Amino acid sequence: MKIKRTLIVGGTQGNELTGIYLVKKFEREPKLIQREGFETCTLLANEKAYEIGKRYVDTDLNRCFQSSCLNNLKLSSYEAQRAKVIHHTFGTGGNRPADLVVDLHSTTSNMGLTIILASKKLFNLQLAAYLCDVNPKVKVLYSAPKTLENLGYLHSICEFGCTIEVGAIAQGILDARLFQQTEKLVHAILDYVQAYNQGVPPQVRDPLTVYQSINALDFPRNKDGEVQGMIHPRLQFADYKPIHPGEPIFLTFDGEEIVYEGKEVLIPVFLNESAYYEKGVAMFMTRPENFSTKQSS
Amino acid sequence: MKIKRTLIVGGTQGNELTGIYLVKKFEREPKLIQREGFETCTLLANEKAYEIGKRYVDTDLNRCFQSSCLNNLKLSSYEAQRAKVIHHTFGTGGNRPADLVVDLHSTTSNMGLTIILASKKLFNLQLAAYLCDVNPKVKVLYSAPKTLENLGYLHSICEFGCTIEVGAIAQGILDARLFQQTEKLVHAILDYVQAYNQGVPPQVRDPLTVYQSINALDFPRNKDGEVQGMIHPRLQFADYKPIHPGEPIFLTFDGEEIVYEGKEVLIPVFLNESAYYEKGVAMFMTRPENFSTKQSS
Repeated sequence: MKIKRTLIVGGTQGNELTGIYLVKKFEREPKLIQREGFETCTLLANEKAYEIGKRYVDTDLNRCFQSSCLNNLKLSSYEAQRAKVIHHTFGTGGNRPADLVVDLHSTTSNMGLTIILASKKLFNLQLAAYLCDVNPKVKVLYSAPKTLENLGYLHSICEFGCTIEVGAIAQGILDARLFQQTEKLVHAILDYVQAYNQGVPPQVRDPLTVYQSINALDFPRNKDGEVQGMIHPRLQFADYKPIHPGEPIFLTFDGEEIVYEGKEVLIPVFLNESAYYEKGVAMFMTRPENFSTKQSS
Repeated sequence: MKIKRTLIVGGTQGNELTGIYLVKKFEREPKLIQREGFETCTLLANEKAYEIGKRYVDTDLNRCFQSSCLNNLKLSSYEAQRAKVIHHTFGTGGNRPADLVVDLHSTTSNMGLTIILASKKLFNLQLAAYLCDVNPKVKVLYSAPKTLENLGYLHSICEFGCTIEVGAIAQGILDARLFQQTEKLVHAILDYVQAYNQGVPPQVRDPLTVYQSINALDFPRNKDGEVQGMIHPRLQFADYKPIHPGEPIFLTFDGEEIVYEGKEVLIPVFLNESAYYEKGVAMFMTRPENFSTKQSS
């Protein structure tokens, strides 16, 4: 199938300015994102949260796109309504359906330039592989389908999609280097789509390494759920660096080390993401796996 | 005069967790902050802002302590009330008056370990000099009296005071290294006060270098006040590194460099502090000056 419409989203979280200011730039200068053979739309997903300088108004918009939420008329939060409107517009079966959605996020974790796949469909894998070829610093992440189905990410509203997650960057600020690197990735995606539609997609690496999310580790907490320790200083900003069984991963406020009790070397991501404190996540543990980017014959 | 009561404050900004969790630790283990000869109290200044995960509820609490605000009964914001309560309790003339206040803050700027002086009273200078001796990474900052009077910082409520400003750290997260370094500074302050009260304060460096705030530079903005550029990537995290006339300091979203038009080499601080976007401050420019820490005879 050809990509007829691509949607570039910023501000799914209202305090992640990189995507918001990129979308504003593209809306001022729409020629920048025009390519031959398909339409590119932009969306500020949660403008109300942006206005109040928060991630969300009532609830995390990027957890509202599972069908159980989209089909539940009783959900009354601002974000539940907003998700329905976005889905009815740009989702599969909507009135301006997109074929590919690119959702621009940032994080307080040192995720560098991470592509989070909406699914492991071949197109998504090939696109991510192309971005790794364009910029070797790019890493590719995927949450297992079960988790993904439960999470309800915006990037899942149509056939193809991904999230660009850049960091480390605090909420509510712009980092010029990450802004420019994110913009380059958007342009690379649009270039790829144009070539793909023309039947001449660039050759990409094969296989592609994908960090697959295995589980989440929470902070040490007391019985009231209050955090009792911090990411170990060795691990701060150490996303994508392997953690070995027995290594200290947390430090309590009294200076006591808490070790990793897993039996397998795994790769942490989203270490110390601010928004995940309330979700009970200090880090996600991933396992790198290789996937073919070739059409199976 | 002797210090009879010291007040350690966290959570003046509700999303700066370092001070909040340090105060919680001290409240769990009050022995840690007990010293001979004086009382040490703790305060979570803006617990309501902490509960909602924001800097403030209605307005910045750390701009509510000027006398024009404290004496104005018509101000109805949550923080205006809170400032009055804190001042009536711990301020000069309050019912539990403190002689020294230490306010624990963090910032998205790369301020390392910065002591912001409430005033240039000799005690404050000597205390700051002691902290520089204890940890040579400590830097000392001061805003000129005129500005200070207008700003209404919490640390100005009693005779002596300072703010400990640590970073770079995003809002809403804990950084173990900065947490421990901040705690060490609090202990050093209490040790100093004990020795000072006993008439045997440690010898400290003389003179002391203080970065004096000269003016603020705002981001480039359009006529609607919307930000049109970012801190230049060369300057990101480059707090305390000199800026020379003609050097690029901003980068517009279109990639255009904007240069520093001042005529004097100055030292930037609070580069890209998230909370200052709304205050029209991209950075403060400072000039280092030396001050004597000796009693004038």
